[in-house]
Amino acid sequence: QGSDLTLYGYLNTAVESYYKGAAASSSAVGLPSATTSRLTNYGSFFGTRGSEDLGGGMKALFQVESYVFLDGVTPPGFNAFASRNTRVGLETPYGTVFGGVWDTPVRMLLARDLFPGSTPDGGQILGNGVANTVSNVQAPGSFARRQVNTLAYWSPSMNGLRLMAHYSFGEDATPTARPRLLSTSAVYDGGPLSLGAAYETHGRYGGAGTQDRAWVLYGAYTFGNLKLGAYVVDMHYERVIGSDTLDLDVRNWQLQATYRLGKGLLKAAYTRADNGSGSLSALGTDANGQVTVDASRMAGQATAGPDTGASQIALGYEYGLSKRTAWHTNLLFHRNERNGAYTPFAGVPSPAGALGVRTRLLSVGLRHVF
Amino acid sequence: QGSDLTLYGYLNTAVESYYKGAAASSSAVGLPSATTSRLTNYGSFFGTRGSEDLGGGMKALFQVESYVFLDGVTPPGFNAFASRNTRVGLETPYGTVFGGVWDTPVRMLLARDLFPGSTPDGGQILGNGVANTVSNVQAPGSFARRQVNTLAYWSPSMNGLRLMAHYSFGEDATPTARPRLLSTSAVYDGGPLSLGAAYETHGRYGGAGTQDRAWVLYGAYTFGNLKLGAYVVDMHYERVIGSDTLDLDVRNWQLQATYRLGKGLLKAAYTRADNGSGSLSALGTDANGQVTVDASRMAGQATAGPDTGASQIALGYEYGLSKRTAWHTNLLFHRNERNGAYTPFAGVPSPAGALGVRTRLLSVGLRHVF
Amino acid sequence: QGSDLTLYGYLNTAVESYYKGAAASSSAVGLPSATTSRLTNYGSFFGTRGSEDLGGGMKALFQVESYVFLDGVTPPGFNAFASRNTRVGLETPYGTVFGGVWDTPVRMLLARDLFPGSTPDGGQILGNGVANTVSNVQAPGSFARRQVNTLAYWSPSMNGLRLMAHYSFGEDATPTARPRLLSTSAVYDGGPLSLGAAYETHGRYGGAGTQDRAWVLYGAYTFGNLKLGAYVVDMHYERVIGSDTLDLDVRNWQLQATYRLGKGLLKAAYTRADNGSGSLSALGTDANGQVTVDASRMAGQATAGPDTGASQIALGYEYGLSKRTAWHTNLLFHRNERNGAYTPFAGVPSPAGALGVRTRLLSVGLRHVF
Repeated sequence: QGSDLTLYGYLNTAVESYYKGAAASSSAVGLPSATTSRLTNYGSFFGTRGSEDLGGGMKALFQVESYVFLDGVTPPGFNAFASRNTRVGLETPYGTVFGGVWDTPVRMLLARDLFPGSTPDGGQILGNGVANTVSNVQAPGSFARRQVNTLAYWSPSMNGLRLMAHYSFGEDATPTARPRLLSTSAVYDGGPLSLGAAYETHGRYGGAGTQDRAWVLYGAYTFGNLKLGAYVVDMHYERVIGSDTLDLDVRNWQLQATYRLGKGLLKAAYTRADNGSGSLSALGTDANGQVTVDASRMAGQATAGPDTGASQIALGYEYGLSKRTAWHTNLLFHRNERNGAYTPFAGVPSPAGALGVRTRLLSVGLRHVF
Repeated sequence: QGSDLTLYGYLNTAVESYYKGAAASSSAVGLPSATTSRLTNYGSFFGTRGSEDLGGGMKALFQVESYVFLDGVTPPGFNAFASRNTRVGLETPYGTVFGGVWDTPVRMLLARDLFPGSTPDGGQILGNGVANTVSNVQAPGSFARRQVNTLAYWSPSMNGLRLMAHYSFGEDATPTARPRLLSTSAVYDGGPLSLGAAYETHGRYGGAGTQDRAWVLYGAYTFGNLKLGAYVVDMHYERVIGSDTLDLDVRNWQLQATYRLGKGLLKAAYTRADNGSGSLSALGTDANGQVTVDASRMAGQATAGPDTGASQIALGYEYGLSKRTAWHTNLLFHRNERNGAYTPFAGVPSPAGALGVRTRLLSVGLRHVF
Repeated sequence: QGSDLTLYGYLNTAVESYYKGAAASSSAVGLPSATTSRLTNYGSFFGTRGSEDLGGGMKALFQVESYVFLDGVTPPGFNAFASRNTRVGLETPYGTVFGGVWDTPVRMLLARDLFPGSTPDGGQILGNGVANTVSNVQAPGSFARRQVNTLAYWSPSMNGLRLMAHYSFGEDATPTARPRLLSTSAVYDGGPLSLGAAYETHGRYGGAGTQDRAWVLYGAYTFGNLKLGAYVVDMHYERVIGSDTLDLDVRNWQLQATYRLGKGLLKAAYTRADNGSGSLSALGTDANGQVTVDASRMAGQATAGPDTGASQIALGYEYGLSKRTAWHTNLLFHRNERNGAYTPFAGVPSPAGALGVRTRLLSVGLRHVF
């Protein structure tokens, strides 16, 4: 009926061989090393979008987007249909307003990672966990959120600069609070240069009176076939534990480079989570001197203490069979420090409390966009 | 492949500010007053339909329609895809026969409420609860049902008169019965006048040998820019409790008016549930003289007893940005009597047993149809 | 966006009257006889597929296919969207490679049954249970699988002969094993003659070191309006029980015939499961001499022992209203032997341990393809 309805999709799958090392010898929870082969889904989706010209520079806009779990495996309890970026809104000369479920501005900026949606996705470290279609009471440690109950404003592009603000309503009550989210960004894209800053606050995620926040800085520059970029992310958490409010600070960063080689593209990223600092530490020791973890004092994958960081190197090559279809292969080296508990995105999860686990992965896959 | 396949949708969302009053002082279950702001989905959907001309005045018809939970929040355990009105059938000169999941004729008549699918939907009172995609053992108190396992017949339109009959098979066994549903309607639409009557029976919803039934009368007349309408609904319930069969009668009604003002539309509806009467009463008193509720003696939101009714006033204004896109704003005043337990459609639910709760709501939203 | 995106679907529903007999008098678990009427979904689906020409005889291919539970009833916990045959892949002159979720080659060969997806589907006996969208740890007895985590190769058609191989990765760990699947087939279709052979192995489905396997042979020949066909299926199971590995062999077969009568088609199939043989027997006797079943020693519907077989006769007639739309009616007579525990596809299930149940069914329905 609509004059400009579009069906679109992104399908990406890979065969992976996946080595997961043993837990650190100091970890109270052990984990033997193991190798897995698997078929994985790399963030596939399918959607419909359209718009209607209302005259006077105004348009009605909509999008209905669904997860495609291409390997057939839907996470339990997950509704795939129309729970990816989905909205209805109005575009005006003064900007766009919409309501629905959508990536936050912080996540949209973090999606300039070189491997978004695939196992080497650096956003999993940078944002402390990529969280898909979550409310204000789910995945409270994550700053890479696809957020429900979102009311959004996007400015028009002003000579390459765009401002965004998303608010997610405090609809879900916890026993002590009614959490809510505000995420904002300013991003400039002009010729070879991209610069972005984003800031997000999580009100009452950690209990009454708490406020978590993160800022993200991003910059990239293209020199001919070479593009270099970098992220810095700073996250601050507050958690009510008994009668105290404890806090945690985490600073993560990434260096990235791509090099275009004809129809091929070489990609490399180094991502690093520094040690957490502050009074919110999950680490303890048991009677045998082994390091234990108090899960209630983790903020996602992060906690305060020595050697709680992680780093990963991701290397990729992709070859375009057309503008819409490409083969790709990736190598990932993910290393937790002795007390670190990070996991690659959509990776084989570690048992709770297993520390210091390292991961190596080789993938070969195919991507098609329509 | 099909020559006339259509993709269509309805997307409607609003920001609501929602005040919910305290429970009546006589209620054994307390509830403090609270205010919520939220983003809400107003009955959005997305579908595909088509037909094939078979010659001789016959057509094959189909529709596959899905819920779009536009704010990203799917009710737990709910399958959004293809579980809204979905069918395959044949249209002939003598009428249309189809099988699938579909609104009952009673619900289709109640959908002439002025606010269908949004929080002020009067069908929530008139039909004792709007029930989405339910079988014969789910939501047994509701007479506003989207019903699975439906075999349907619709007459052709005969000078504006159309007859409908839907039967839902008794596939789901309870310990004592195999419930089933029959819903019928006759609706006339001609020029300024609309008249409708519908009748629905629920066999064995309340236990072996029981028969719940409802009739609905509707009329509306358009005088220039003004349209006036009214509903009367009469519901009868039977419930086996121990060795007795108790019964409950509820009569609800609505007055509605709309006034067209250029591209704008003013809407007002007053909806009323009278006290339930009969032997099926959930009300009791505890040792402190507070009023208690025995949930097993409720029929949806209704029960017999003094002051068990409710009423609501809904006021709305919408402004068409085009034929397919409109802004809207609503005001809702929902008032339970002292022992009443009604809740607005998709409203913040009250704790079981909280009586006499009142609700006020202000919304601003956007609707787009494609 | 894609130049050749297609929306397609298959919608099929029927009203069924369904008689289910009592359990055998020797069965420890009783079951009274009962008759049900119901509206049933016969394997309906809806999908999108497309391809992109990459030049040099290569194409990118994709398909996203969803279950349509046309009667509105989704199995609990089931994700309907995009979990039917869904893939992304490449077609080359040397064959097609894809990843996703797809029917195994064995199931694709068994789908030459005359009633696929409907209650008389003989694949339910031939393959020991039709299993929809399962991993390597779900429905371990079934050899008619829609399998997740599939990497597939299909040869080009070579003068009517096509080879297929599907591998499903061992991603899901059980306490003792990491099961995986390999399914292969060779099928020839040329003029009046069709011949097919398929072989499938299930590594570690029954515990460490076990290997289940099945082979299927199929042949059919068309003589004018008459087509005759036959299947033989041989299944072997191994199960670790305590410290022993017990085994079970089952051999099933089918004879089928169709006769074209103008726009009508007559269909008949006789399907038979022989007694299971081997050391894996679930049968025992209780103190009263009644026959008991140890569910842990069943392989799907099969077990070793006397009178553990079943047979069914399916008769059908369909009449084409067009190439895409047909009415159909079926009769099914399904008979378990005294100790048999087979159930028709999507039939009313028997209580665990009820033996010797017989079923009769009459259906009238409508099918539309778009």
